[in-house]
Amino acid sequence: MTRFVQPHITRMAGYVPGEQPQGGGFIKLNTNENPYPPSPRVKAALAEAINDRLRLYPDPMATEFRRTAALLHGVAPEMVLAGNGSDDLLTILTRSFVGQGDLGGFPAPSYLLYSTLVSLQDGRSVVVPYSRDWTLDLTALPATGVKLFFLANPDSPSGTALTRAQVKDLAAGLDCPLVVDEAYADFADPRYHAMPLVEDHPNVIVTRSFSKGYSLAGIRLGYLVAHPEIVEHLIKVKDSYNCDMLSQVAGVAGLRDQGYLAETRAKIVATRGRLTSALRSMGYTVPDSQSNFVWATGGPPARATFQRLKEHNILVRLMCYPGCPDGLRISVGTDVEIDRLLEMLETMI
Amino acid sequence: MTRFVQPHITRMAGYVPGEQPQGGGFIKLNTNENPYPPSPRVKAALAEAINDRLRLYPDPMATEFRRTAALLHGVAPEMVLAGNGSDDLLTILTRSFVGQGDLGGFPAPSYLLYSTLVSLQDGRSVVVPYSRDWTLDLTALPATGVKLFFLANPDSPSGTALTRAQVKDLAAGLDCPLVVDEAYADFADPRYHAMPLVEDHPNVIVTRSFSKGYSLAGIRLGYLVAHPEIVEHLIKVKDSYNCDMLSQVAGVAGLRDQGYLAETRAKIVATRGRLTSALRSMGYTVPDSQSNFVWATGGPPARATFQRLKEHNILVRLMCYPGCPDGLRISVGTDVEIDRLLEMLETMI
Repeated sequence: MTRFVQPHITRMAGYVPGEQPQGGGFIKLNTNENPYPPSPRVKAALAEAINDRLRLYPDPMATEFRRTAALLHGVAPEMVLAGNGSDDLLTILTRSFVGQGDLGGFPAPSYLLYSTLVSLQDGRSVVVPYSRDWTLDLTALPATGVKLFFLANPDSPSGTALTRAQVKDLAAGLDCPLVVDEAYADFADPRYHAMPLVEDHPNVIVTRSFSKGYSLAGIRLGYLVAHPEIVEHLIKVKDSYNCDMLSQVAGVAGLRDQGYLAETRAKIVATRGRLTSALRSMGYTVPDSQSNFVWATGGPPARATFQRLKEHNILVRLMCYPGCPDGLRISVGTDVEIDRLLEMLETMI
Repeated sequence: MTRFVQPHITRMAGYVPGEQPQGGGFIKLNTNENPYPPSPRVKAALAEAINDRLRLYPDPMATEFRRTAALLHGVAPEMVLAGNGSDDLLTILTRSFVGQGDLGGFPAPSYLLYSTLVSLQDGRSVVVPYSRDWTLDLTALPATGVKLFFLANPDSPSGTALTRAQVKDLAAGLDCPLVVDEAYADFADPRYHAMPLVEDHPNVIVTRSFSKGYSLAGIRLGYLVAHPEIVEHLIKVKDSYNCDMLSQVAGVAGLRDQGYLAETRAKIVATRGRLTSALRSMGYTVPDSQSNFVWATGGPPARATFQRLKEHNILVRLMCYPGCPDGLRISVGTDVEIDRLLEMLETMI
């Protein structure tokens, strides 16, 4: 039956997400989920939305959510588009800008999905390696033919971020849309946020996620902010009802509870600092993280450490990028979880 | 900014879903929602799932849902794939099988999304008109080049369905996958279900929806059953976390409450019969429907009737297909809603 499938898809390996064990008992530090529960206001709003209206289709444009996000960021609602997680938006963007044989660019090491999305379009990936100081030099990019550039900011796995001025320079050097994937921006200092660039830089598109900062990975919601003319075309590419009724309700309640976001953010940032110092004092190389995870290389062999931790029910993410030392990407858990991790790592040094 | 968008997308108009008024006060018979609430067991399962686990990613493969659907249909779990509504699955299928310039086929009149999905792939649509007796003659199809054929069964707007034997013949005549879109099959006599064909006819793919029979349009859930080799490739194309945690829970509970489905189905089938007779006695042409809507042509001018009903807060769907008389597609509501509709229509004859 495979003969019916498009050849570029049969050739592909497909993206493999981090392990999601459905049983309990794990200290789960492998997919950058927030260790704190969602806002009580979000749960209350969801509970209220479990009613007979679920028989109806959701608002295809997520109008109330759109308005709420627009208000928060000081942009027009026409500049906002909601997605079934920010992955849905990254898919919509790739389908809109990258055709067969076109180039899609992104830094390395970064989110592995970008390459998958370009391959699904039968496009070709062009990679810009990060410098040792985690900045980017675009001279490696072909002068023409790049139809879309993805920048995870903060980046994964490094956790590092480019400043707004650096992102602005990057956008100016590109003759294509620059997607700034801000899935982790809720944990970054605001000077790393590209959102204020969108209004005056029409090739800048910023995506946001509810999976990390808002502790709602299970609900699937993200949004993007872009030039209204771009949004108009993206709407044609998205599924009509891409965001369900409950995620829209959760999103509105989440955006309106910025106090709760700030509270969990502060706890995570504090634990991140402690985790970074402890890993460094064990001899690991850990760049300063603006995210809810840290990237540890240079310690004992990463694969063995990963396995050993897993045997003790601690999941971290082993990441092996060509040209980079193997490393462990460790999500910032609760203090108790991180203490347990550090204890285990100490025994392995 | 439009210059960055792929030209075939800038040229497209985009699919326009039926009106979804967010306020109340309408008798809503325009988008084939179920007039009865979701199963109380579904609502109970959802309420229980509003908890701190929402901070975690959902199971990317919806394993429990997959097993439950497989059990219901007597197939292997590897033959089942869950989607964010069956539209998500139709998108995944089109991306998997239709490349730039390829042909995607479907009958007319039928679900307008098929043509949009083919256009989004920069493919070309080829249309097979229904005969007067609502059967299909594939001799109109080009001998080669068709990469995917969609059959809504029951069809929209007609509400009619091909029998399993007819679908089997159709599949045998195609050298490409046949997607049998069974969004409305919950309202059809089982002899119209193509599901039993999948095991022995590897080019038959059946999609199902929770939006109609299960009264869960707001939750976004669908699934398909196909040859396991096909499913393996479709997994590469879908977003990793396309189905959120709550829809998976709702889906499992819904599938396990077949009694509730049968109960609401029986009520809708009874009302459908009454609606069909009443419309026919007013002079409308109404084919026998196997769905939760009826297709009425040949009465007073459809557009004027549509407008007049809307002024009285009754929404039906005006559908104008080239080569067909304009018609009204009317969802089967509650008996009270249908009485109100019929009363209004009587005044317009």
